[in-house]
Amino acid sequence: MSDNRGMTEQAAFLFDLDGTLIDSVYQHVLAWKEALDGEGIPLSIWRIHRRIGMSGGLLINILLRDTGLDLEPARIERIARRHSAAYLRRVGEIRPLPGARELLRALTDAGIPWAIATSGRMETAQPTLDMLAVPEGVPVVTRDEVRHAKPDPDLFVTAAQRLGVDVRGATVVGDSVWDMLAAQRARSLGIGLLSGGYGTEELERAGAYRVFDDPQGMLDHLEELGGRL
Amino acid sequence: MSDNRGMTEQAAFLFDLDGTLIDSVYQHVLAWKEALDGEGIPLSIWRIHRRIGMSGGLLINILLRDTGLDLEPARIERIARRHSAAYLRRVGEIRPLPGARELLRALTDAGIPWAIATSGRMETAQPTLDMLAVPEGVPVVTRDEVRHAKPDPDLFVTAAQRLGVDVRGATVVGDSVWDMLAAQRARSLGIGLLSGGYGTEELERAGAYRVFDDPQGMLDHLEELGGRL
Repeated sequence: MSDNRGMTEQAAFLFDLDGTLIDSVYQHVLAWKEALDGEGIPLSIWRIHRRIGMSGGLLINILLRDTGLDLEPARIERIARRHSAAYLRRVGEIRPLPGARELLRALTDAGIPWAIATSGRMETAQPTLDMLAVPEGVPVVTRDEVRHAKPDPDLFVTAAQRLGVDVRGATVVGDSVWDMLAAQRARSLGIGLLSGGYGTEELERAGAYRVFDDPQGMLDHLEELGGRL
Repeated sequence: MSDNRGMTEQAAFLFDLDGTLIDSVYQHVLAWKEALDGEGIPLSIWRIHRRIGMSGGLLINILLRDTGLDLEPARIERIARRHSAAYLRRVGEIRPLPGARELLRALTDAGIPWAIATSGRMETAQPTLDMLAVPEGVPVVTRDEVRHAKPDPDLFVTAAQRLGVDVRGATVVGDSVWDMLAAQRARSLGIGLLSGGYGTEELERAGAYRVFDDPQGMLDHLEELGGRL
């Protein structure tokens, strides 16, 4: 017997963090560049940008495959620590994206469940969660808590579980192709935002059913997305 | 009588600089962000990235239109100066893109004419031209020398004139949609490179007839592009 519960119920939104709610992608990109330069690993910056949104470990592994290098786990961990330090040095210049706080407040006020699911670790996510004033009780799932980060679906599946909703009835909101691919693997819908610096077409090709500029753009269209206020 | 000279002659290549030969786009983006923040003008970073490749003045004007602000010329000039200073502080971490020096050397060795045409000013371009070891006699056209920068065709038209070739028989190589649109306006062919961080599809939609990863990717396919070595 098919279980179609969850498919006509109220919407639930699972948000990526960097580039989706927070204007932090370019600082992450240059922090990874600095970390790799520090280990003598030359890599073009656009290749890092294309991989942002994956977990740090997966990002490093794939970047190393691109460069033909093979590194031991201790060095990978050192690169990740260098990235965190370089990112946290830049965090003072980072701000929420336009409409991010307003969108989250509108969902909360309307009683629409939402959660945050980030490939980053809590160490780098915490300062930006503070900027968003995420209310008590909203699930925040970080890379520390799941076995596989995006484009695996685990982060979004775990976030849906914490909300008590069926991930297949939920909508994933993200800025990168990795969010859209993870949404497909979770059988969620994907909404793409341009605020991470990727193009409309590549988000659509990765499965986004709608693309908006940023959280403000999504807020302006919320009632088309199942988000009845 | 039609003048079809120049259409079957040897290829000539007109190169953009930032993001095309030099891995400098992300530093330019954050330098503009710093300059705008310094003037109290809030703007999402991806919107700056989408406008990079235009002249500084045009970029500021369009960004201001996006924000609904209207600034006097003196303030625009001050933002441009802040950008130059912020960029030049970062220039030590900037490197040529993979294959850039090898591609230019291969063209020079084969006697294929090439030039550089950048929307930047000589002040910010000079340090990266030095990294490329551009030979004596290669035309370098900067924003200082033309009335309108990209997406107007003036920079590429002037570069072709300095080479003594017909711009309509030349090939423009750039990383941004502005390069591809300027190429169309000059009736040149456009080759897009992904190394500025834009997507394949948006470069193709702006008119690129081929898209490669970076200068190395173009070098690997040079003989398909009229560049007989």
